[in-house]
Amino acid sequence: MLEVSEVGNKVAKEAYKAEVPSLRVGLVNAQYDLRNADFPVIIWIAGDDRIAANQMVNRLNEWLDTRFVGTRVFAEQTQEEEERPTLWRLWRALPPKGQAAIFAGGLMRAATMRVNDEMSEEQFSKWLRHVEGMQAQLVADGALVLKFFLHTPEDKQRKKLRKAEKDPETGWWIDQRDWAALEKMGPTLPVAERILRETSAPGAPWTIVESTDSRYRDLTVGRTILAALTARLEQKSVTGPSLAQSVFGELDGEATVLSKVDLSQDLDKETYRAELAKQQAKLYKLSIEARKRGISSVLAFEGWDAAGKGGVIRRVTQSLEAGDYRVNPVAAPTPEELRYPYLWRFWQHMPPAGRFAIFDRTWYGRVLVERVEGFASPDEWQRAYDEIADFEAQMVERGYFVAKFWLHISPEEQLARFKAREETPYKQHKITEEDYRNRERWDDYVQAIDQMVLRTTSAKAPWHVIPANSKYNARVTVLKAITEGLKRTLREQS
Amino acid sequence: MLEVSEVGNKVAKEAYKAEVPSLRVGLVNAQYDLRNADFPVIIWIAGDDRIAANQMVNRLNEWLDTRFVGTRVFAEQTQEEEERPTLWRLWRALPPKGQAAIFAGGLMRAATMRVNDEMSEEQFSKWLRHVEGMQAQLVADGALVLKFFLHTPEDKQRKKLRKAEKDPETGWWIDQRDWAALEKMGPTLPVAERILRETSAPGAPWTIVESTDSRYRDLTVGRTILAALTARLEQKSVTGPSLAQSVFGELDGEATVLSKVDLSQDLDKETYRAELAKQQAKLYKLSIEARKRGISSVLAFEGWDAAGKGGVIRRVTQSLEAGDYRVNPVAAPTPEELRYPYLWRFWQHMPPAGRFAIFDRTWYGRVLVERVEGFASPDEWQRAYDEIADFEAQMVERGYFVAKFWLHISPEEQLARFKAREETPYKQHKITEEDYRNRERWDDYVQAIDQMVLRTTSAKAPWHVIPANSKYNARVTVLKAITEGLKRTLREQS
Repeated sequence: MLEVSEVGNKVAKEAYKAEVPSLRVGLVNAQYDLRNADFPVIIWIAGDDRIAANQMVNRLNEWLDTRFVGTRVFAEQTQEEEERPTLWRLWRALPPKGQAAIFAGGLMRAATMRVNDEMSEEQFSKWLRHVEGMQAQLVADGALVLKFFLHTPEDKQRKKLRKAEKDPETGWWIDQRDWAALEKMGPTLPVAERILRETSAPGAPWTIVESTDSRYRDLTVGRTILAALTARLEQKSVTGPSLAQSVFGELDGEATVLSKVDLSQDLDKETYRAELAKQQAKLYKLSIEARKRGISSVLAFEGWDAAGKGGVIRRVTQSLEAGDYRVNPVAAPTPEELRYPYLWRFWQHMPPAGRFAIFDRTWYGRVLVERVEGFASPDEWQRAYDEIADFEAQMVERGYFVAKFWLHISPEEQLARFKAREETPYKQHKITEEDYRNRERWDDYVQAIDQMVLRTTSAKAPWHVIPANSKYNARVTVLKAITEGLKRTLREQS
Repeated sequence: MLEVSEVGNKVAKEAYKAEVPSLRVGLVNAQYDLRNADFPVIIWIAGDDRIAANQMVNRLNEWLDTRFVGTRVFAEQTQEEEERPTLWRLWRALPPKGQAAIFAGGLMRAATMRVNDEMSEEQFSKWLRHVEGMQAQLVADGALVLKFFLHTPEDKQRKKLRKAEKDPETGWWIDQRDWAALEKMGPTLPVAERILRETSAPGAPWTIVESTDSRYRDLTVGRTILAALTARLEQKSVTGPSLAQSVFGELDGEATVLSKVDLSQDLDKETYRAELAKQQAKLYKLSIEARKRGISSVLAFEGWDAAGKGGVIRRVTQSLEAGDYRVNPVAAPTPEELRYPYLWRFWQHMPPAGRFAIFDRTWYGRVLVERVEGFASPDEWQRAYDEIADFEAQMVERGYFVAKFWLHISPEEQLARFKAREETPYKQHKITEEDYRNRERWDDYVQAIDQMVLRTTSAKAPWHVIPANSKYNARVTVLKAITEGLKRTLREQS
């Protein structure tokens, strides 16, 4: 696959000098137009020639206006990166709409780790699947993803290195690592080719660039970026490939997950107090063990308005040390957040080793309120199930304990609570016209909730549908689910 | 100092129950009003009673609307925090205007480290001075800073712990650490008192709260927050204490730093090429050593428009591996950034161990463009010199290599470059009406630059004023200053 690019492409110095100025004008102009466009650009520089990749990144930084392009090189993971799910650092480095980012590294590194068996086949193929999944999200969201693999045949690299070592102006670049990488090139390249194959996708192709000649390399990459960016800017409206499928029938009259919930469950005050104290003590002890062992937790809370999420969350946090958790309240996305794929803002809150991230409303807003209110298109919310599954799979693979809760109450109970809130002075702020309006959509929500639970529950990231007409019952049931689940996670990882 | 608070304050259960609802209404209402106010609120909970502090944080989270208040507990530093200057994590946790944050921890921890000699007297007093300095910035910027020290006498704590251990509902909180902390309380309290004294300041007083009785504690803290927040919201306009002083005379006819620069310095192409290659090779090797040894660099570039900052920066980055540096281009602050103290956005870019952070324009904008154009008030830019000095002192103390460059050209050279840019297609974007307009303020800038250089240069964070009429000369001179400075830093730290 890579050999076919080895055709000896070269560009003469004069031809290079003649073309560069207009290429630079084009690139800078396109960058200015990009600022008002509603998509981001990701340029990924990978390759088997470290020096070529380094030079290429520097060249792009020279040609582009660096005020609107960030560069991120993925080298060894830092401690904080190791503590998070695999692609956390990629998500954090994403450019917003209207901007570009240059990513470098990562690919040959992964290939080398696979060859050296520092990554098992299972880990490697999971990693590949996550990269693919993330790329699919970006492309579906409209991102322009341009990937370059800079290839220089082994013998050509040896020649370049030997020559460069003799030249004081360039010799300082050469490094023991470069010679070592050449030794490993034989077995590593087939793995690199596999990555190229499996991450080639419509809208995000790889361009393999023969890099023996640096002028040919620079021009090819520059031209490809300019052509793709210009073509994209000229499209009037941009939509990803349509994934919309009518996968769900109407549910009229059918039983749903929610219809099976026994809302009559209750607890008397005395039992409640005793059980609560017992579960809180358990959770506290488990949290200390989890902190010591570096096992993190993600607790996701969803539920009807006035279902009592806040009260439940407080009973959870009361059992934790203040430094061990963060509660992330989720409201409508800000204008800044809307410039990124919708999962971006949740990725920011992945907990470090041994800590709890508690979400008061979650990424499931995509398939609940955004679906029902039409804020997300059918394309968008239907692909969200898979995107969410991939997001949570990465948490589970990182060893996180993940639990998701839907607090269920009846419409009658909700109405009663709305009325009561209006009469409690410090809760009046919690109730608005919109809350009443949302009640009219109850059935639409029932359908959305049903599909959400069925499509996104899994053994390691299960949904717990909690009967919450009784607050006492809801609190104790949630705490039990957390202590049992966390205990199991701690046991399984020992 | 702390003993005087030990007067046995208590609140009866009925009185507590009677007051809490109105307190909560008040707090939540004030929080809603805060959203439209132009100041942030920082609530700091410290104390000698770990359990009381934990409960207090939980109580505030219960009383306040957690959508608009974040909690941050400062425990042991993470690796990424250790790699940055002292107060980096505090800066990162600051709330924007219109929001509140609860900070907990840090104080007793520092006191204990001092008692155990894990912090020398010098380190400790530097830390205290930085905390003080940061607080002064926040207050001057309008922040409402409310600090509480929860104090429970040792004998009362022992009694509480013994009692709690017997009660299954609360006993799970108790920990070996609590007993250990009590052993150390005698020698630690005087150090804590010193922190309280030295960080008490107008606009940011400490409230010492006797915490033997949890109801008294909760009500006292709650009431104090409500009273301070309400009073502040009622003020029509808010200005910090006036620090404006006419510290600078007019400079008419006087010699300035810039007037002494010999702009005739030049290099022929051949010498330039040889020198550049030599310095780049040096810098590359030094950067590899710096990375290995975890010594970070901050390079700050300022200069007249068209002085050639971009070209100089590119010669620097060409000598570095792409993963070892980030270039941070600094433009006018965004609306988001304006919601924080002006140094906040620069704190975000402090480099991790062994890496380079390069700033294309810097925090000195405060005393340059913001001063000259009147974007900052005299109060603001005059105190900026000290704020900047403290910022850079923290970098130096962390072991960073810090160098600052002013690229100096003559007005005639600038005009010639503007004209040339207008004729170079890929540079046309760089030149606007504003650039010409700025030229009219040349003399005001000369004065501002002079004062900036004189007031903020120091042995470990020196200004280099670079004659840049010759681009060749500027590039080589900057590279030399960097290689010499970095070499010295590497030597001094070995």
